[in-house]
Amino acid sequence: MMKQGGYNVAVVGATGLVGRVFLDIMQERNLPVKSLRLLASARSAGKHIRVGENDFTIEEATPNSFTGADFCFISATTEVSREMGPVAARAGAIVIDDSSAFRMEADVPLVVPEVNADDLASHKGIISIPNCSTTPLVMALTPLHKVNPVKRVIADTYQSVSGTGTRAVDELKEQAGAVLRGENAEADVYPHQIAFNVLPHIDSFLENGYSKEEWKMVQETRKIMHEPDLPLSATCVRVPVMVSHSEAVHVELTEPMDVNEARRLLAQMPGMCVQDEPNDAVYPLPVEAAGRDEVFVGRLRRDASHPNSLAMWLTSDNLRKGAALNAIQIAETLIERNLV
Amino acid sequence: MMKQGGYNVAVVGATGLVGRVFLDIMQERNLPVKSLRLLASARSAGKHIRVGENDFTIEEATPNSFTGADFCFISATTEVSREMGPVAARAGAIVIDDSSAFRMEADVPLVVPEVNADDLASHKGIISIPNCSTTPLVMALTPLHKVNPVKRVIADTYQSVSGTGTRAVDELKEQAGAVLRGENAEADVYPHQIAFNVLPHIDSFLENGYSKEEWKMVQETRKIMHEPDLPLSATCVRVPVMVSHSEAVHVELTEPMDVNEARRLLAQMPGMCVQDEPNDAVYPLPVEAAGRDEVFVGRLRRDASHPNSLAMWLTSDNLRKGAALNAIQIAETLIERNLV
Repeated sequence: MMKQGGYNVAVVGATGLVGRVFLDIMQERNLPVKSLRLLASARSAGKHIRVGENDFTIEEATPNSFTGADFCFISATTEVSREMGPVAARAGAIVIDDSSAFRMEADVPLVVPEVNADDLASHKGIISIPNCSTTPLVMALTPLHKVNPVKRVIADTYQSVSGTGTRAVDELKEQAGAVLRGENAEADVYPHQIAFNVLPHIDSFLENGYSKEEWKMVQETRKIMHEPDLPLSATCVRVPVMVSHSEAVHVELTEPMDVNEARRLLAQMPGMCVQDEPNDAVYPLPVEAAGRDEVFVGRLRRDASHPNSLAMWLTSDNLRKGAALNAIQIAETLIERNLV
Repeated sequence: MMKQGGYNVAVVGATGLVGRVFLDIMQERNLPVKSLRLLASARSAGKHIRVGENDFTIEEATPNSFTGADFCFISATTEVSREMGPVAARAGAIVIDDSSAFRMEADVPLVVPEVNADDLASHKGIISIPNCSTTPLVMALTPLHKVNPVKRVIADTYQSVSGTGTRAVDELKEQAGAVLRGENAEADVYPHQIAFNVLPHIDSFLENGYSKEEWKMVQETRKIMHEPDLPLSATCVRVPVMVSHSEAVHVELTEPMDVNEARRLLAQMPGMCVQDEPNDAVYPLPVEAAGRDEVFVGRLRRDASHPNSLAMWLTSDNLRKGAALNAIQIAETLIERNLV
């Protein structure tokens, strides 16, 4: 049952790439908002943002920012989430957090609503949304897994710079311009040039040789799918694309599955869209997925490395389904299920 | 034994990207050339190319171009190879061909000298070099396979536009400039925009859903490694990089292998260079591999999807080891082994 008059909403990180997209989608989908408080770091405080017909002043996020809030959406740094998330939850808000701060905590649901909405029922005030490369993967695995359990997954990613934030998008443009003019590309956000290059390096590295981004995909996929031992590997690579992450995925199932059957299951999955006419050059593309809500899947084929395996190609807008849209869908689901 | 005075060499496709690199490497490595004939399509005939101190006039490649040639290097289109290869071989030249025209023919050796130089002994006048994404893969698999047989391979690629040729490099630059100016990117060489985008589409598509490029990797790897049933899958993706192809590789072996042991074996493999200090942001990068002869490998780790698996990241210059250098190494090996 929806709260009379709507919900008091606080947005931490309102000036970031995900924050802006969040405000757009909130309006597109008519999230029932009674009051809106836009929060960011001290650096952005005082700035103005237009949301629909209204002008909002950015306030500095402090532990006192959440009084009366029903929902608190956080998309800033992991440090900000760690500081503000528990405070907002104690103030009575449901925190929907885009960082990795709480994802693997046992009492924090990690949710893609099309996949594991039921996990929301046990929330204790903080709900995490997965990493932007995990979400499209679990969306694609789930409809197959339900009829033919997944035994092993390998996913190699092609991730856009908007996953890093505004400064990375600017850096890619600046470097590309410099290279085209025959000048040196100066690297600041990334450790190396990203323009006309690819970097097998997202987030820092762990003892086991995986990057944190790769290990997030492994652990988060297992948690969301309730398969704590699912054999899974990923190589996460930053590519010079503005928006949308892509993934080459190889899925081993328990038994062989006909490609047409897999295509049918994927087409029926809410939030997924099959684009798979390679002979007509139709397959998911980052530039076309940008600004769209769906996870796109194509290049579906029997994987030649194993009789029970399928190969496919996924693309989705990392700022939307990979972040802001998924957060809003969680709020919508909580409202529908009387969990607010 | 080297032929007195050197060899008569014909180069078909001398004005292409690979042809130019070929001429550079031929000089760098002092290939013993007595006479050099530079051939291309009628469109390029009459153009001049400087090779070292000498000026050469491009001649149109015709069936009569190969009289007296000892070696004929072809890097043009598959159609040109089909037309000129057998003619040059009948004229007595050893044809070293960069196209897919003859690679899978039973009596044509498909050779990466560090891997299967012995296959050269049975040549019948035509020798093929592998596709530019196959070569780095077999270079990395071979030293592991020798001590712990490879059971299954998954390789997803990040391939540069120079693999398509000069026009594709120009198209990437033009499109990148247009996008930076806020204009539309016009696609001509590729079916879609390649600037700030990635395309899971290299060459045309087969009935089984694989692209020809992907299927070449599967079949060529099996042939070169003498493992006709090796389970192997690939997704080949064009990325907006000028030069160098990269690959995320997942290799399942017969038994577990320690990562340090794998690193040691790869470091000992002639032609390979380990760049694997991820915490210092040291790993293979396309912009750094461009112009280099080695196949670079890094991001080596136990693959979390299988106890016997390793994951790694490869990068190599597709115009050099992926094409021109490998061709010249074949000629050098033939000379060394008295097979000319």
